[in-house]
Amino acid sequence: MLQPTHNGERYELTSPTAMPKAGGFLWNQKMMIQITCRGYATAQFMQPEPAKYAYPPNLEAKTFMQPEQNYYAHHPGRFVYIKDEESGELFSAPYEPVRVQVDRFVFSVGKTDISWTVEHLGIRVTMTLLLPTNDVAELWSIKVTNISGRSRKISVYPYFPFGYMSWMNQEAEWIDNVGGIVGSYKTPYQKAEDYPKTKLLKDKTYFLCETPPQSWEARQKRFEGEGGLHNPSSLKGTELSNSDARYETPTAVVQYRETLKADEEREYRFLFGPALDETEINAMRKKYLSKEGFAQALQEYQAYIVQGSGCLKIETPDKELDNFVNNWLARQIFYHGDVNRLTTDPQTRNYLQDNMGMSFIKPQVARRAIVTAVSQQEKNGSMPDGILLAEGAVLKYINQVPHTDHCVWLPVALEIYLAETGDYGILDEIVTGMHGDTYSVFERFSRAMDWLLSARDQRGLSYIAQGDWCDPMNMVGPRGIGVSGWLTVATGYALKLWATVCEQHGKPDVAAHFRKGVEEVNASANSHLWDGDWYARGITDDNVTFGIKKDIEGRIWLNPQAWSILGGAASASQIEKILPQVDEQLSTPYGTVMFAPPYSDMREDVGRVTQKYPGQGENGSVYNHAGVFYVWSLYTIGEKDRAYKILRQMIPGPSKEDYLQRGQLPVYIPNYYRGGWKTFPRTAGRSSQLFNTGTVSWAYRCFIEGLCGLRGVPDGLRVNPQLPSDWPGMKVTRLFRGATFEIDVTRADVKEVKVVLDGKALDEPIVKGVVAGKVYKLAVSVPR
Amino acid sequence: MLQPTHNGERYELTSPTAMPKAGGFLWNQKMMIQITCRGYATAQFMQPEPAKYAYPPNLEAKTFMQPEQNYYAHHPGRFVYIKDEESGELFSAPYEPVRVQVDRFVFSVGKTDISWTVEHLGIRVTMTLLLPTNDVAELWSIKVTNISGRSRKISVYPYFPFGYMSWMNQEAEWIDNVGGIVGSYKTPYQKAEDYPKTKLLKDKTYFLCETPPQSWEARQKRFEGEGGLHNPSSLKGTELSNSDARYETPTAVVQYRETLKADEEREYRFLFGPALDETEINAMRKKYLSKEGFAQALQEYQAYIVQGSGCLKIETPDKELDNFVNNWLARQIFYHGDVNRLTTDPQTRNYLQDNMGMSFIKPQVARRAIVTAVSQQEKNGSMPDGILLAEGAVLKYINQVPHTDHCVWLPVALEIYLAETGDYGILDEIVTGMHGDTYSVFERFSRAMDWLLSARDQRGLSYIAQGDWCDPMNMVGPRGIGVSGWLTVATGYALKLWATVCEQHGKPDVAAHFRKGVEEVNASANSHLWDGDWYARGITDDNVTFGIKKDIEGRIWLNPQAWSILGGAASASQIEKILPQVDEQLSTPYGTVMFAPPYSDMREDVGRVTQKYPGQGENGSVYNHAGVFYVWSLYTIGEKDRAYKILRQMIPGPSKEDYLQRGQLPVYIPNYYRGGWKTFPRTAGRSSQLFNTGTVSWAYRCFIEGLCGLRGVPDGLRVNPQLPSDWPGMKVTRLFRGATFEIDVTRADVKEVKVVLDGKALDEPIVKGVVAGKVYKLAVSVPR
Repeated sequence: MLQPTHNGERYELTSPTAMPKAGGFLWNQKMMIQITCRGYATAQFMQPEPAKYAYPPNLEAKTFMQPEQNYYAHHPGRFVYIKDEESGELFSAPYEPVRVQVDRFVFSVGKTDISWTVEHLGIRVTMTLLLPTNDVAELWSIKVTNISGRSRKISVYPYFPFGYMSWMNQEAEWIDNVGGIVGSYKTPYQKAEDYPKTKLLKDKTYFLCETPPQSWEARQKRFEGEGGLHNPSSLKGTELSNSDARYETPTAVVQYRETLKADEEREYRFLFGPALDETEINAMRKKYLSKEGFAQALQEYQAYIVQGSGCLKIETPDKELDNFVNNWLARQIFYHGDVNRLTTDPQTRNYLQDNMGMSFIKPQVARRAIVTAVSQQEKNGSMPDGILLAEGAVLKYINQVPHTDHCVWLPVALEIYLAETGDYGILDEIVTGMHGDTYSVFERFSRAMDWLLSARDQRGLSYIAQGDWCDPMNMVGPRGIGVSGWLTVATGYALKLWATVCEQHGKPDVAAHFRKGVEEVNASANSHLWDGDWYARGITDDNVTFGIKKDIEGRIWLNPQAWSILGGAASASQIEKILPQVDEQLSTPYGTVMFAPPYSDMREDVGRVTQKYPGQGENGSVYNHAGVFYVWSLYTIGEKDRAYKILRQMIPGPSKEDYLQRGQLPVYIPNYYRGGWKTFPRTAGRSSQLFNTGTVSWAYRCFIEGLCGLRGVPDGLRVNPQLPSDWPGMKVTRLFRGATFEIDVTRADVKEVKVVLDGKALDEPIVKGVVAGKVYKLAVSVPR
Repeated sequence: MLQPTHNGERYELTSPTAMPKAGGFLWNQKMMIQITCRGYATAQFMQPEPAKYAYPPNLEAKTFMQPEQNYYAHHPGRFVYIKDEESGELFSAPYEPVRVQVDRFVFSVGKTDISWTVEHLGIRVTMTLLLPTNDVAELWSIKVTNISGRSRKISVYPYFPFGYMSWMNQEAEWIDNVGGIVGSYKTPYQKAEDYPKTKLLKDKTYFLCETPPQSWEARQKRFEGEGGLHNPSSLKGTELSNSDARYETPTAVVQYRETLKADEEREYRFLFGPALDETEINAMRKKYLSKEGFAQALQEYQAYIVQGSGCLKIETPDKELDNFVNNWLARQIFYHGDVNRLTTDPQTRNYLQDNMGMSFIKPQVARRAIVTAVSQQEKNGSMPDGILLAEGAVLKYINQVPHTDHCVWLPVALEIYLAETGDYGILDEIVTGMHGDTYSVFERFSRAMDWLLSARDQRGLSYIAQGDWCDPMNMVGPRGIGVSGWLTVATGYALKLWATVCEQHGKPDVAAHFRKGVEEVNASANSHLWDGDWYARGITDDNVTFGIKKDIEGRIWLNPQAWSILGGAASASQIEKILPQVDEQLSTPYGTVMFAPPYSDMREDVGRVTQKYPGQGENGSVYNHAGVFYVWSLYTIGEKDRAYKILRQMIPGPSKEDYLQRGQLPVYIPNYYRGGWKTFPRTAGRSSQLFNTGTVSWAYRCFIEGLCGLRGVPDGLRVNPQLPSDWPGMKVTRLFRGATFEIDVTRADVKEVKVVLDGKALDEPIVKGVVAGKVYKLAVSVPR
């Protein structure tokens, strides 16, 4: 059976072959692990830059998380071989490396664990992975049960390959003193000045056994022999060879020879992770490697994850959706906001948007992030390309390429924070920045907005430099002339949001100043970028306007349309023209593509976007982040059916074909689904598997403030549900400023939304004077 | 059968499992390929930095060639599956990925091709790889013969995986227009300024078929299915699926369905390589992909390789040795000298030593290299860390770490060049350098030697900065205080060599100046570095002398001993103490280790060496380059038996155990064999597999000028054979300054070497007035 069954909060899969990349994802404050249903795993931790403790078999480039990444026989993973000692038959759990079709397979992804149940040859293997909350380690329990009804002799071989640790120095062996196999290497360095940093890195990987095994193997090649991973030569013998690895690829395999009566079971516990030295390994063993240690770790981790439960529970006609929103979405935002994608220099726009989502989960974290961000503001009011979070961190990769949009995200993030908390006090906080200047948060925001106004050409359009949102284009404006259509209308939106905050904060003069700015930029956009039915994407250094009707590729872009609606550049009559164009040119069954048609080759006056595969990444894919901006813009104008349709398309299912096509489990929103719907229908809709994306914050906002219409205003909670037309109603529980709102939304013969609070109809749909700790029961009627 | 049989110039292996890493190596002026007996391959080409056209399955780090590198199921390779269409049985040639034990296996490495013959299921498969001389491409012929004596139906599936070309953009499909499968990607770049460079890179990989196949497959996962590489699901069907790859891992598999009568055969030809576009692919097809094209390419390549035949043929009691010296060694020096290790910034010392060897092969290349090197001399007379060979090349990796020994290699390389050619005219060549200064080569050498004299402390010892030869230690002298024992005595050697050239060039004053320098540095070495029985390795910034008796690790180093003999610091009585210490502390059955005992952990006042695994790389391995310096120093003092013993140890064989232990085929000298003879006996002697090493130049010198004792002097060829005591004699053919010397060396009752030329005894053992084109027959008697 293919389709995930929703057992409470769990997502389950019952075949390892139908969706080979289906996987689970756990993280804590120090690490993350993505593990597939077949047993392949990618784990990273911070020290302070991202590092690994199980490595691929060749030298892997240090890079960011790759989209649609590949697995292959020797990819790092966590496996258990089971050998029937009487018949010699072999299988492995979860599935790799032997790949036997087993009698029963269940892959089960929960909020705080990932587990498998595999049955074959009359043996049941249950594997469960937990993480501790504040340490880097994997807590594995492996349970083996004889379900054959007769006595059995078997060997159980957990196989946790360490991989190619280093070309410089690597070894591994069983160490009695720690009770496990320890792999060691030294981080290579070439310059003497790097050594003080590298010497303290966790260059050991340990695999600790609670129960001492009968034999072990630490040398990968010796283990495999000529049999290969699917049938390792070592498993033909009675015992493993107890061989060390000495500048040979290390591994960790142990053997438990067992005689099991009918229904008898054995449970083993293992610890897998990186460490500096044996002292640290022993401390980890003591802390975790016992039944009690695992139980305690699980309890703590559950408590940690509960912090990310979010502020919304829904009960709608769409059970898939309920499960997704209630169980997965908030947790995923919590991940983004709590660990900042495991990077030391998040891009400024990502950092602000991830924390924008965190306003719904742990607002104090969002507050701190906003203050941290503005403390790194440049002296001229602009924002840097990345926010440095660790001592010694530097801007890397794309953060070395100048982008001009970072200021936009300040009021975008702040708006949500203020709506959730009403904490206008943040604006008066005094912040001395990393460049030594001192301003209040309010002043810093105004300076950032003034910088946006200043970074425009004589036509009033915003310069793009080497890129703006989503990094796709680095040749539009490298000479300092080219402008961005999106950034121009996004500047309008940012100024509009900030002007409103200025008013709410009692600064009407400042508000007026920025309102005037809004009018200016929107007028400029309409003079130079309106192409008759939609807005252009930009104008290059050589004055070529692109993203317009006469373009054959990159003809219409989603972002300029969404943000012209948000910022007010688009009039009602312009919006009427835009929406059908988006429907017609950009929509697919998997969501709305970022632009269309995708570029098939380099367009040298536009740049880097065309290096992506057509329909992949930023090149005309269903880039969910852009899609969800558009969804939000639709909710702001009451386009509830169009909005919901796209929002729902982002979440795979419910059809088997849809899951298969996208290859996505558990149900989450990746950064993109492949586009190229017309040119490459075979691959269109496929998931990137990359879960790091600001999409989740916006999607949550769309559910809370759009679909449920439960949005904070300075004096309370405004209620304006926007149900899809075919829903009869829904139930919602919303946490807001410490109070709980239990809301029953139904259709009624009303012209506009009516709210009844504790049996009393409200004059306007706003619950004012919210008291923390109180439970509000609302009956909400929406027009039929 | 394990042991290679020497069939003329070929090296053969008859089992793929006994020596899994045994391989062959071909190169031309644009590329190189290292391919194992089992079919795994690593190929690189220059554009201008090293690049690949077949990739591992995950993102590979850009790095230098790795020692002792690992192979795994999905490593790039060149394979052919054979399926019996009647029985469904499957095997693959050469061996991977199916790994069936075949009936017959021959892996055969020649000078200009690499081939396999594999027999199984009554089918013989012969695979042969050629390279063209001036293009980047692999020329494959695959011949399939029915040796079963009955009619057969089979399918032949060449499988040439492209691998994970790029995370940015990759695809592949059959293209009729070129007659093959073409994989494409785009080199990612992040900064707009890099694009003009990356846009011209050869981002396509092609697999062209002379004969159109019946079906094809370009998508790796589709090909493997759940069967895995050892039993691909796709091969179960009648035909391949003709599937393209669209941002999926590409591959190239084609199918030929054949009905073969008894003894019938089919021959197929394929072209595999990188290209910029289809035009280039078609041009390559036209040029090479035919019977005639292959024949022409082979002929040209043979003519190219003949240029590297070298100047020495020997016939000794040791046939292994003859084959090695006559067929392999010169070819390997030619590779180093002709393509400079496929790098755009060879380390200065490597560049000079590789070209030192080239003096024996193509002296005009050595001449140009010496001039190129001094043209990059710094204004203060020192030499840079690397020599830039391509426009836009920059110093990378270790070349960014300051080393102080580069000047030493100038007279070392020059000495051989002058001895071979007598071309003292090079010294008067005027060279305007890259920094704009103009000096003669003679002046530049003197300035370099004066710089060496200046870069010493008040004790007269040479500063080490962050390292000297072999890059092992970067913490001895980073504060500018620490000194190198080796570099001090090596400075003595360099000055001594240069002073002799000065004399020969009629500059006695300059010679006297540098002779005085020699005395000074040697005196300094003896005052501060002589430890009673050997010379210390250095003195740290904190005035700690190391490489001495009281050290527990790194107690005695080979280089200071060898070079103190060469440079004259060591007196006869000191040498008498040194030699037994080296024998006792440094010798192993696989050669002489660089130092002993190896470091087991970081020694923070010494540095980087201890990051290597003990006995591996520079950390106490049998580092052949250091060994061969020592051998040369032994020949200079007439220690012919000690010298020959170590020289012979560098070459694996003749015993089966020795081949197995070292894992080396064909017989070549890698940069190191593992040391740790006492601590890690299991792995001691194992080959690094890394063939880039200056060792080969010195080894050739040791054979020519040491063992055979045929060394150029300004007015002719000096004859002084140093046969091992147990050899009765040998025959030598030596090319020298255009003449041919045919030499018969025998033992006789003589006190010293006697030379008879064309029946006439010479007064002294020097053949003077050598006439190009003439054949000289020498009868040489050496003492019993």
